[in-house]
Amino acid sequence: MKQKKLKTLIPFVLLAAISGGSLSISSTNGEARTETTNKQPEIRNIIFMVGDGMGPSTTTALRYWRDNHHTRTMEKTTFDRYFIGKQMTYSNDSKENITDSAAAATAMATGYKTYNAAISVDRNKKEVKTVLEAAKSAGKSTGLVSTSELSHATPGSYGAHDPDRKHMDSIANDFYDEKINGHHKIDVMLGGGRSNFIRKDRHLVTQFKKDGYSYITTKQQLTANRSNQLLGIFSKEGLPKMIDREKSVPSLKDMTTAAVERLATNKKGFFLMVEGSQIDWAEHDNDVVSTMSETRDFERAFAAAIDFAKKDKHTLVIATADHATGGFTVGANGNYNWFAQPLKAFKRTPAFISQKINEENNVKKVLKTYIDLSLTHTEIQSVEQAATTKDVKKISKSIKKIADARSVTGWTTSGHTGEDVNVYGYGPGVQKFSGLLDNTDQAKHIFEAIHKGRLR
Amino acid sequence: MKQKKLKTLIPFVLLAAISGGSLSISSTNGEARTETTNKQPEIRNIIFMVGDGMGPSTTTALRYWRDNHHTRTMEKTTFDRYFIGKQMTYSNDSKENITDSAAAATAMATGYKTYNAAISVDRNKKEVKTVLEAAKSAGKSTGLVSTSELSHATPGSYGAHDPDRKHMDSIANDFYDEKINGHHKIDVMLGGGRSNFIRKDRHLVTQFKKDGYSYITTKQQLTANRSNQLLGIFSKEGLPKMIDREKSVPSLKDMTTAAVERLATNKKGFFLMVEGSQIDWAEHDNDVVSTMSETRDFERAFAAAIDFAKKDKHTLVIATADHATGGFTVGANGNYNWFAQPLKAFKRTPAFISQKINEENNVKKVLKTYIDLSLTHTEIQSVEQAATTKDVKKISKSIKKIADARSVTGWTTSGHTGEDVNVYGYGPGVQKFSGLLDNTDQAKHIFEAIHKGRLR
Repeated sequence: MKQKKLKTLIPFVLLAAISGGSLSISSTNGEARTETTNKQPEIRNIIFMVGDGMGPSTTTALRYWRDNHHTRTMEKTTFDRYFIGKQMTYSNDSKENITDSAAAATAMATGYKTYNAAISVDRNKKEVKTVLEAAKSAGKSTGLVSTSELSHATPGSYGAHDPDRKHMDSIANDFYDEKINGHHKIDVMLGGGRSNFIRKDRHLVTQFKKDGYSYITTKQQLTANRSNQLLGIFSKEGLPKMIDREKSVPSLKDMTTAAVERLATNKKGFFLMVEGSQIDWAEHDNDVVSTMSETRDFERAFAAAIDFAKKDKHTLVIATADHATGGFTVGANGNYNWFAQPLKAFKRTPAFISQKINEENNVKKVLKTYIDLSLTHTEIQSVEQAATTKDVKKISKSIKKIADARSVTGWTTSGHTGEDVNVYGYGPGVQKFSGLLDNTDQAKHIFEAIHKGRLR
Repeated sequence: MKQKKLKTLIPFVLLAAISGGSLSISSTNGEARTETTNKQPEIRNIIFMVGDGMGPSTTTALRYWRDNHHTRTMEKTTFDRYFIGKQMTYSNDSKENITDSAAAATAMATGYKTYNAAISVDRNKKEVKTVLEAAKSAGKSTGLVSTSELSHATPGSYGAHDPDRKHMDSIANDFYDEKINGHHKIDVMLGGGRSNFIRKDRHLVTQFKKDGYSYITTKQQLTANRSNQLLGIFSKEGLPKMIDREKSVPSLKDMTTAAVERLATNKKGFFLMVEGSQIDWAEHDNDVVSTMSETRDFERAFAAAIDFAKKDKHTLVIATADHATGGFTVGANGNYNWFAQPLKAFKRTPAFISQKINEENNVKKVLKTYIDLSLTHTEIQSVEQAATTKDVKKISKSIKKIADARSVTGWTTSGHTGEDVNVYGYGPGVQKFSGLLDNTDQAKHIFEAIHKGRLR
């Protein structure tokens, strides 16, 4: 029976493996699974997507955001339609039992639990192989896409090795220096962080160009370019947040689509890691406006990956988070509501609006320009009060307070939290990622998929 | 192939159905599922378990609680081993988009989304059939077990109908008055809430006894009793919390086991609803000590249900939550840690200890008696300061602050939050509850299991 025919008959079925569990159902399931994996299409391409800090409250809030208020049902998000399980995120740090992004990315990229700040080195600071490196060794094309600096913790852990995530220049060096079979290990790099590639001590862009890479810095160039080896850096540090971007800055979906187009020309397949990096940053700032728009940016990229996988039939797409951030809660202060509408009214991030307030010295006008809400006298006053300090952070805090109160959002920390995060997936082998995973299982299964082309 | 043999071969497999999703894998999965359900053992018994307020942070915290600190791995909880998916919890209330326990229990008991406070009536206050009633109509035995009053929102929604959860006396009346085919609809009731059964206007206990029910009030009587129609009420209102219980009060596991023993004598099978009611109450109080011990009480009851199901082979066990409560976060205030050890040091709940402090007038001594921690001078002083008010709530707050700080727990609300909650399951038909469910799906699937004896 073909996939298409099956969809008509039994559309909602997946064979899920609970890793480490003791669930056993009837004998036929086991047989079915073996049978399935034998007939399973070859896994040629893997797109692994990380919503940094995209905890379970964030993805539920996205459902509220995407809800059609004219129906009684809460409509499902793109993520919801591909929900397959959860993963544990804890790291093996001697001082902290909640992970940072580096240890989490190392776990997902290499299968090793390590200390916080480690970039694909184990607890003894020994370099450990990443799935991107394994893919390159196997003759596949590889790519890294992120809205953070390309040498930030998550993409860094897929393409580099370093005892400390802070060494972002060294991480960028690794991207160039650490060759596999005489070839550069990453074919397509799209994201932010020009300052780590163009430095006083070293000009990595020139080096990459000398070796045949195209270098681009705008969305227009990205659209025009046809090179399969591509370094696209669209900002000095992290990309501007989605709602603050100029037209010259691509969306995460733009970058994901551009990367996939190039990587898919390799008949041996590809491995691509895509990170929605700034969901986490917004949550660190307890900024619910940007948390939601960055999550939406990531969801659109996920949808594009799924679209490709559906046509291709040999592509496995997995999306998850490395951890949750901010102690973000859907509802707060005894109020049994969460509202997305007031957040959609923000045309720019609180940080951007605060900057404008400091420049223009007319609080009311700036608020009116960028926030499509009838703000109360008290709300405006609270921002005016903050504006007298000329401290952008304080102004931003006063605006974020309005967003929190209007949306009924709670926060408990400027750091990470430990709860399990969701896993979403589609494509051949997806059953292996279902149920409750450990974050190291992501790497283990991807290594197997790369080596064997199938997952049993 | 028998179940036992399979476990050796492929122990971690389940066939999971994503309700409402568009996931489709290879054709063999679909065939497998059909084949499986044909061979699936008959579903005779259903144990549906609700950890009230047991959100995703609470179950992750339980893993920290159960962790063996001598290993590098974080050991899995009993729940973890049976994780199968998540459910959406929102209700259809005109003023609130985060559910209360009544609307959530109504959704899970009847398949109807309704307004907050509704006890198995729809949005138009029309009574709607519950799965417990369907089970009784089908000749099965039925039971309700809870650590709250038996006529509280969750058990109430399985055994009664009322426009308002506050009418706890009327709900208790329904348990007696609403007969099915001339028989009482609930065979075994174990929990709290004597004041709703023995009242000035009506003595429901006498009425139940007249109709052949045994009535018991202690754990000792529960152990000695052999009646299949049993009303056990162990406290005037809700049961004391697990760590405050006298020996005369049964645990949730004790009550669950006692209920199952009686109900299982019916060859046509049974439906049992078990609620760990006070996880939610503890979280409403932002009391992490009791949140954890009540969750542990619920986990032990779940383990007992699983043990029965494993031996029985015709029992489906589903455990979930109705919603999350308190905005409980694992980690807070920028600290990348969560610690269970300081919480285990509490021999009684903060509420109990506060009461003692008010009675005994010796803060230091009482704290030393009930909290096995070396409290700092500042910590003791903060409680002494609160004790001068003679206000138990204020004293309790000062003790809860110590527990929060020591464990690194965050809270954002005294009410509920909207994030999806986990679903755990075991037994024939469990595949139907996997993936992302709506809370109404619980009822829909259980009705089908009752009517057809199988789930396809």
